[in-house]
Amino acid sequence: MSNQQVIGIDFGGTSVKLAVVEGSELLTDVFRIPTQDFVGANPLIAAIIDQVKEIRETFPNIAAIGIGVPGAVDFSTGITYNLTNVKGWSSVPLRDEIQRLSGLPTVLDNDANCMAFAEWKFGAGQGYRNVVCVTLGTGVGGGLILSGEVFRGSTYAAGEIGQMSIDYNGVEGPYGNSGALERYIGNRQIAEMAAKMYEEKGLPVPEDHSPEGLAILARDGDEVAREAWRRIAHYLAASLMSTIYLLNPDAVVIGGGVAHAGELLFDPLKAKLKETLTLECFHHLSVVPARFGNTAGILGCSAMAAESL
Amino acid sequence: MSNQQVIGIDFGGTSVKLAVVEGSELLTDVFRIPTQDFVGANPLIAAIIDQVKEIRETFPNIAAIGIGVPGAVDFSTGITYNLTNVKGWSSVPLRDEIQRLSGLPTVLDNDANCMAFAEWKFGAGQGYRNVVCVTLGTGVGGGLILSGEVFRGSTYAAGEIGQMSIDYNGVEGPYGNSGALERYIGNRQIAEMAAKMYEEKGLPVPEDHSPEGLAILARDGDEVAREAWRRIAHYLAASLMSTIYLLNPDAVVIGGGVAHAGELLFDPLKAKLKETLTLECFHHLSVVPARFGNTAGILGCSAMAAESL
Repeated sequence: MSNQQVIGIDFGGTSVKLAVVEGSELLTDVFRIPTQDFVGANPLIAAIIDQVKEIRETFPNIAAIGIGVPGAVDFSTGITYNLTNVKGWSSVPLRDEIQRLSGLPTVLDNDANCMAFAEWKFGAGQGYRNVVCVTLGTGVGGGLILSGEVFRGSTYAAGEIGQMSIDYNGVEGPYGNSGALERYIGNRQIAEMAAKMYEEKGLPVPEDHSPEGLAILARDGDEVAREAWRRIAHYLAASLMSTIYLLNPDAVVIGGGVAHAGELLFDPLKAKLKETLTLECFHHLSVVPARFGNTAGILGCSAMAAESL
Repeated sequence: MSNQQVIGIDFGGTSVKLAVVEGSELLTDVFRIPTQDFVGANPLIAAIIDQVKEIRETFPNIAAIGIGVPGAVDFSTGITYNLTNVKGWSSVPLRDEIQRLSGLPTVLDNDANCMAFAEWKFGAGQGYRNVVCVTLGTGVGGGLILSGEVFRGSTYAAGEIGQMSIDYNGVEGPYGNSGALERYIGNRQIAEMAAKMYEEKGLPVPEDHSPEGLAILARDGDEVAREAWRRIAHYLAASLMSTIYLLNPDAVVIGGGVAHAGELLFDPLKAKLKETLTLECFHHLSVVPARFGNTAGILGCSAMAAESL
């Protein structure tokens, strides 16, 4: 049943965000608990539970809790392996602890799967049967909806689009994986690439050459910034092309900060995909920006929790 | 019900092969109809139907027909789009024609899916939930079993591992897809690569520098041939690594002529995968040779037909 009130808890690198969710609506503001105030898992879990209790005084009908975390989780046991940017969180039975302390049924998944679920249930992926979701930010994450279900893989590690190779002899990825997409179009790598492009042209490197800055520059007609976006699109297209040949999805949903570049990214990306895919794979394919921004994680884990009831 | 007698029909480039199948057993020799003897679809279909009728005189309990074809098919309508190496076969309603003329329920799929189904039901992929099957031959094909079902994608075009890119700036594939795996490790490309490797060393190019020939040479200690196999493994590893990061399967089954090289291919391939995958993706993963050779297609389409009853 998906029309119940649940609490969504989204673990970020700097804060844990909580909100009450019904369907695709947030019924409250987003409460934030800064992770840096806590050492290790248990004190932070206690603070979360305090917040949950407070929320339930106003919302007595909360039926479940959904949790999204950055990093690997075992979906079947609800144990987190590690949280990106958060220390002291390996092998924490987070789902069962929250469930035990709150007394509410709890679902735990990684944030990329939550984002994919939110976009598929309520957002840009709605109505499609096979959806590939990509988030472009500090890293590159992904989540898959296949045959109308979240596809998690054999050890719940599927969807790692950022680790796919676009060059068998390319830049080393974090796991020795040459050509890992993330090492080409992560935020930092985009900024470094752009800086080098300006330098090679003998031009001063703009102070803000982050993806955001590059989008503004490109819209103002800066040729180097426009070329940078074409390269980003080219890199992304290579891995999406491979993903599409493998999975033949009907939609690719792209979110995260880098996707805010809009047509600067999407126009060359779609052109490249059209150029390199068979008609069977391309003609029915939608390549669309994500609908939800920062709330995708909360909405997705909440929707998973509501569906599990 | 899978313990019924069915006729499996496997369309190859040079002949159509038919056999009576029960479970994973062939109850007859393989009958062959040479495709070159027929111009266009209808005369060949008539010859197939004649053969089917003859078979049913000996096997009156045939319950269904399974057909595997090389090339794109629409699984839902049973229409072939094109058959690799066979002319005059675009947009043929092959499934319905065979069904109408034989009076038997008929299932049609592409041969890579049939191979994957056979390996998963009876062969090297048995007992696994998520299986990636690859065939290495003239081209590179693939079939996917995901969550215990054949995964065909939104327009039945999934599994095209041979078209995935291992280099965003690499050799052009047949659809403008730079770095298409098939253009690195198809039979002809392997032979060309090996010839170049011998020439670069100032060595005579062995008469048989096909994958088969290279396997014999490598086993005899030929260093260039051994290096060629390491390169082949390196190329294949790049696309499998991407596939595994995306799908997190529990088995990769590799068949086709090139896979007959055995440990020459599998040892460096597994080493490379171990080197480039996370522990979560690698520790439970089986990378194994296919069990069935030429009969995989017949067994697979037969099993699909039997299961559909």
